[in-house]
Amino acid sequence: MSTREKVTVCEVGPRDGLQIAHGIMPTAAKIRWIEAIAAAGVAEIEVGSFVPPKLVPQMADTDAIVRHAVTIPSLTVIALAPNLHGVRNAYAAGAHRVSIPVSVSEGHSRANLNRSPAEQIAEVGRIVAWVSSQPRRMEVEAGCSTAFGCSIDGVVPIEKVVAVASGLAVAGVDSVALADTVGYAHPAQIRATIRAVRGAIGGKLEGLHLHDTMGLGLANALAGIEEGIRKFDAALAGLGGCPFAPGASGNIVTEDLVFMLESMGFATGIDLVRLIAARTALHQGLPGEPLHGQVPKAGIPKTFRAAA
Amino acid sequence: MSTREKVTVCEVGPRDGLQIAHGIMPTAAKIRWIEAIAAAGVAEIEVGSFVPPKLVPQMADTDAIVRHAVTIPSLTVIALAPNLHGVRNAYAAGAHRVSIPVSVSEGHSRANLNRSPAEQIAEVGRIVAWVSSQPRRMEVEAGCSTAFGCSIDGVVPIEKVVAVASGLAVAGVDSVALADTVGYAHPAQIRATIRAVRGAIGGKLEGLHLHDTMGLGLANALAGIEEGIRKFDAALAGLGGCPFAPGASGNIVTEDLVFMLESMGFATGIDLVRLIAARTALHQGLPGEPLHGQVPKAGIPKTFRAAA
Repeated sequence: MSTREKVTVCEVGPRDGLQIAHGIMPTAAKIRWIEAIAAAGVAEIEVGSFVPPKLVPQMADTDAIVRHAVTIPSLTVIALAPNLHGVRNAYAAGAHRVSIPVSVSEGHSRANLNRSPAEQIAEVGRIVAWVSSQPRRMEVEAGCSTAFGCSIDGVVPIEKVVAVASGLAVAGVDSVALADTVGYAHPAQIRATIRAVRGAIGGKLEGLHLHDTMGLGLANALAGIEEGIRKFDAALAGLGGCPFAPGASGNIVTEDLVFMLESMGFATGIDLVRLIAARTALHQGLPGEPLHGQVPKAGIPKTFRAAA
Repeated sequence: MSTREKVTVCEVGPRDGLQIAHGIMPTAAKIRWIEAIAAAGVAEIEVGSFVPPKLVPQMADTDAIVRHAVTIPSLTVIALAPNLHGVRNAYAAGAHRVSIPVSVSEGHSRANLNRSPAEQIAEVGRIVAWVSSQPRRMEVEAGCSTAFGCSIDGVVPIEKVVAVASGLAVAGVDSVALADTVGYAHPAQIRATIRAVRGAIGGKLEGLHLHDTMGLGLANALAGIEEGIRKFDAALAGLGGCPFAPGASGNIVTEDLVFMLESMGFATGIDLVRLIAARTALHQGLPGEPLHGQVPKAGIPKTFRAAA
């Protein structure tokens, strides 16, 4: 019934948010939280990552979480996996999409994946080949980490981002996302990088993954919208970060992003009141964690135009 | 030596920030704070307002503050005054510019000024006539409050903003600013309103005064930049609000705004390290007040390009 243009907001709090949280959220609490987010109309949730539990203990129950999440009607369930081993586990659990991190900068790639970017692109090639040979369809997305700067290597030239994205397109992924892993991006850089990457891989460039480390998260999202990006990662209450990127703080806040998008006339399919209510499930599952977000604190203003 | 395009950042913390603070900053502490901001290269500071001390006790020492601030070399000193009485005092103290609030919405105008918008535009006409008859030149800026929504009246139609701005241009002000007093604005609205107002009054439209109530402050600033606005109000540490607009929270954070502008290649003339250092003077003068701002918390990233 709505003729407004659609924008997809992918909730990554259960993966990117929890992996750097101080406590460990119990499995039952994660499920209640994910159900609350889905009930608000969020159509895509990155629910966990298949990584060694000794490195990221918060993700030890990802198999159980994915197996439950895929029973939620209409929900696209995404799992992160850094290698073919993790991808096989994601497939076995029934994930609809697997997200593969590929660092653009050498330093972050070594610290986070213990591989060079070129080696990780080769791993993505093996992943695509394996996934293509399976009977069930599972989408493969590659996320270009540190695409806008690196806390280890500093400036990341746009040519490197284009080179990595091009390599991933050749490797056969379904889609590529650009990630501001450490929150160094600014709006002019977002615009220039999107244009350059799109020039190389066209419509394979789909998502933007932004952090609010410097307070520029929504300004960067706006630059992305105006460059035609229609898919954004965000975390409820702004949870998140990267354990291997010193100084990195949370993802952009889902509530504030949805408020901005809906105010501007885009259709997210998300009920902002129910989305804010999902903070309760997050707080109950992880009581010590600070909850960010300006719209939840100030209250939805009377001028807000609710989703049609 | 710089060929980068200039953007003026006007610090309004000592006026808009302090007027809603819980404590009262002592006069000597205000002066140290203003001196620290000016030392960072901020060229314009709104240092106080000439309003009845029984309504806004934090502003009772504005006369002394203005008289000191005008002795700081190269600083443009602005004082807010809601009526001719206040403007006469601002002139006597030596202010370089006076800023007159004019609410676009009837409800906010009545609550804040006890006058209708039309009556306040008439007052601005009397102010311009009086200022023009004085031997010393003092600029007159009018700030259109609630230009993007009102916590009392709700939606504020763009036609009303254009009408008020047009009335102010006819009244003879030097410049008009648009203020998102309660933080309801979104980027598409910012763009549309600037275009409409500029269509009516052209280059008389100069400034944007934004609040971060919903987390959209810097996204709205970005929309303003891209529409050609080159003058922004902001408050150190995001202090601020409006005592008569329930729910309104702080101004956009000067530190984060300067970080965004300089990152994008604009020249603000402000040294970000010294600007962040000015938070110490604010904290010492008002120890209980929370200090906002992401850049000061995360630290300036190694990729940041310092001002030339």
